[in-house]
Amino acid sequence: MTEQLKTIEVCFSPALFHLYKNEDSIVVIVDILRATSAICSAFDKGAEKIIPVASIEEAKEYKKNGYLVAAERDGIVLDFADFGNSPNNFTSDRVKGKTIVYSTTNGTYAVQIASSCEKVVIGSYLNHKVLTDWLLQQNKNIIILCAGWKNRFSLEDTIFTGALADALIKSKHFTTNCDSALASIDLWNIAKNNLLGYIEKAAHRTRLRNLKLDDILEYCHTFDLSDSIPVLKDNYLYNINC
Amino acid sequence: MTEQLKTIEVCFSPALFHLYKNEDSIVVIVDILRATSAICSAFDKGAEKIIPVASIEEAKEYKKNGYLVAAERDGIVLDFADFGNSPNNFTSDRVKGKTIVYSTTNGTYAVQIASSCEKVVIGSYLNHKVLTDWLLQQNKNIIILCAGWKNRFSLEDTIFTGALADALIKSKHFTTNCDSALASIDLWNIAKNNLLGYIEKAAHRTRLRNLKLDDILEYCHTFDLSDSIPVLKDNYLYNINC
Repeated sequence: MTEQLKTIEVCFSPALFHLYKNEDSIVVIVDILRATSAICSAFDKGAEKIIPVASIEEAKEYKKNGYLVAAERDGIVLDFADFGNSPNNFTSDRVKGKTIVYSTTNGTYAVQIASSCEKVVIGSYLNHKVLTDWLLQQNKNIIILCAGWKNRFSLEDTIFTGALADALIKSKHFTTNCDSALASIDLWNIAKNNLLGYIEKAAHRTRLRNLKLDDILEYCHTFDLSDSIPVLKDNYLYNINC
Repeated sequence: MTEQLKTIEVCFSPALFHLYKNEDSIVVIVDILRATSAICSAFDKGAEKIIPVASIEEAKEYKKNGYLVAAERDGIVLDFADFGNSPNNFTSDRVKGKTIVYSTTNGTYAVQIASSCEKVVIGSYLNHKVLTDWLLQQNKNIIILCAGWKNRFSLEDTIFTGALADALIKSKHFTTNCDSALASIDLWNIAKNNLLGYIEKAAHRTRLRNLKLDDILEYCHTFDLSDSIPVLKDNYLYNINC
C-alpha cells in the first residue's frame, strides 16, 4: 500500500490564518526574531511553563498576581515587565522551574490566533532537528504560520519556514501544492549558503540594529542548539521533550 | 540636490491591503492569470471602458440593464454573462468602443479593495514596459497589490511583481525596504530564465489545466504585447495611453 503523503501549507500572516485553519492539522508558529527562538531558549534553561498572552493588559494582570512576566512591544521591554524578548534574558537563574507569562509584538499574538487548533508547536532554527523528527512522527498535515511583523510578510520567518518545509519534503513523507510553501523553499535555497548575509536586508534586522538589539541575530539563526519542543496545552506552552 | 527615491511596497493579499494603504501612493493591481492580462487585452482591442464589479449580484444587475458582461468564478463563466475571463474572449468585434462590466474571482475584487486610493493602475507582463515608463514619470510611491487566490498568496502574481519591482529599482528612481518586495525580486530572479517552466508548479496553473483553460498561459507571460495603461477613474477603468 502506498503511503498517503501529508501536506504542508504556509501562511505568511496571522491575519490570513482563517484561510488555512484546519482543526486537525498541526500548526507550527515561527517568529525567528525573536519570540519562537526565545521560547526554545527558555525551555532549554528549565522553564516549566510559558503562558503566551496577546495583550499588554493581560500581561499586566498576571504581573499583579505575582507572575514572572516577559513582555515587549516593537522590540522594547514594557516598563512593568521583568524582562523582554531577547533569548539572552531567559537565564537558568531567572527561569528554572518557573512559569513565565510572555507577551510580544507578533509571536504570542500568532500563538493566540492558532490556539483553537488541535496541536500548536513552536519552531525556530534552534530546535529545527528535534521539531522535524517530531513532526515526522505525528503523521499529520502541517500549517506553518509565520508571525511576521504586525501582520505583514517577514523575510526571516519565511526563510526558516522554507528550511523546515524543505526538510519535511526531503523526508518523502510530506508534499505541498501551496504556493507560499513553494516560494519559501525557493527563498531558503537562495539564502541557505549565507544565511546571515541574506538576512541583512530584512526590515526587522534593520529595526533590531537601530534598537541595538541585534546581538542575538547569529544565535537565532543557528541550527539545533535546542532539544525543546514547546507545545501548547490549554493556555500554556510546555516542553514535550523533557 | 540628490533626488529623493520613491518607495515600492508589495502586498501579497487583498485581505492585507489595509496595512499598506496610503491615499497618496499609486496602486498597481496584478492578477496575471487572468484578469489583469485580460484587461490589457480588452483595451488593446479597443474597449472604451471596463467597469470592475466585485459581486455577482452587481454584475447581474448591469446585465439586466443591457451591459456587456464578462464574469467568472473559479475559472468558470457565469451563466448569465456574455463571456468569461480569458484574454481570448476580448476580441475586437465584441469589445471595440464598448463598455464592459467585468467580475472575476480575484482581480476585480482587488481593484475594488484599492479603489479609494488616488491612482489605481492595471499591471501585467503584456504592458510591463509602458507601465514601467509611466510609473517612472509619475514620481510617486508605489504599492503593488497581488490579487492572489481568494486572499491567499499566488506564485504567478508574485513573480510578475518581482519583474516590475526589479525594473523600477534598476531605473535608480525607486528603492524598497519592504520584505515582500525583496522576496518578489528574488523569486523573479529564480524564475526569469524559464518563466513558463517555473510557473508549472503554481497552484493556479494546475487549476487552469484541470479546467482546460491553460491555452492563455504563454500569452499571459509574454512581455510587452500591449501599449495599454488601464487606470481607474471613479468606478471604471479606461486606457490612459490611447
